[in-house]
Amino acid sequence: MTSEESMKKAMQAYVDGFNRVDVEAIIALYADDATVEDPVGSGKVLKGKAEISDFYRMAIKTGAKLALVAPIRASHGSSAAMAFDVKLQMPQGAMLIQVIDVMTFNDAEKFSSMRAYWGKSDMVAG
Amino acid sequence: MTSEESMKKAMQAYVDGFNRVDVEAIIALYADDATVEDPVGSGKVLKGKAEISDFYRMAIKTGAKLALVAPIRASHGSSAAMAFDVKLQMPQGAMLIQVIDVMTFNDAEKFSSMRAYWGKSDMVAG
Repeated sequence: MTSEESMKKAMQAYVDGFNRVDVEAIIALYADDATVEDPVGSGKVLKGKAEISDFYRMAIKTGAKLALVAPIRASHGSSAAMAFDVKLQMPQGAMLIQVIDVMTFNDAEKFSSMRAYWGKSDMVAG
Repeated sequence: MTSEESMKKAMQAYVDGFNRVDVEAIIALYADDATVEDPVGSGKVLKGKAEISDFYRMAIKTGAKLALVAPIRASHGSSAAMAFDVKLQMPQGAMLIQVIDVMTFNDAEKFSSMRAYWGKSDMVAG
């Protein structure tokens, strides 16, 4: 089982990698057969590093930056969760998407899944 | 599908009910066959209103209070998530448990599941 410390370190590395515009660093945190559902309920689940890389290349191209709004949470198992804001500069002005990500980890301490909780009502002027 | 607004209202009612020491109000938010895993990874999943009521009666007896640390998040489906601190007065002093709860909803807009993400490292002096 991945330790709480290792999970929190990986989640922090994810935020830092995103903000450094370092897609390779993000992808390195994922297992080969990982899944990504962003947003949860969209009906679309990405699977594998190729699909996941494409997703992050697009997401990062928007210039979005992630800001944690509270300390990363672990669990008593192989999951961790974090609340953050996605900060975007849109032609209409600054915008926030208020998100909670839940990651599960495999035995190699890589993300086996990421699920992002946010709805239309979580996109607000920022 | 439960609307984002309804889900957020139910999550807020959960926090408010907890802080009012109103177990009935909390239980009324749950479906009859709901499950509760708190903390995630503990290996123990409560099922049904009887087990869930016992759990909240015990939790509330500690005098714990919940404080949201960021706006409640919805999703594009029937799930929502929120980050909060559990504030506890212990003989050793004030304490926080830093938690993220993820709820799923059934068609009647009741919680069908609650999963609480927190680990030992999320219990801190507060």
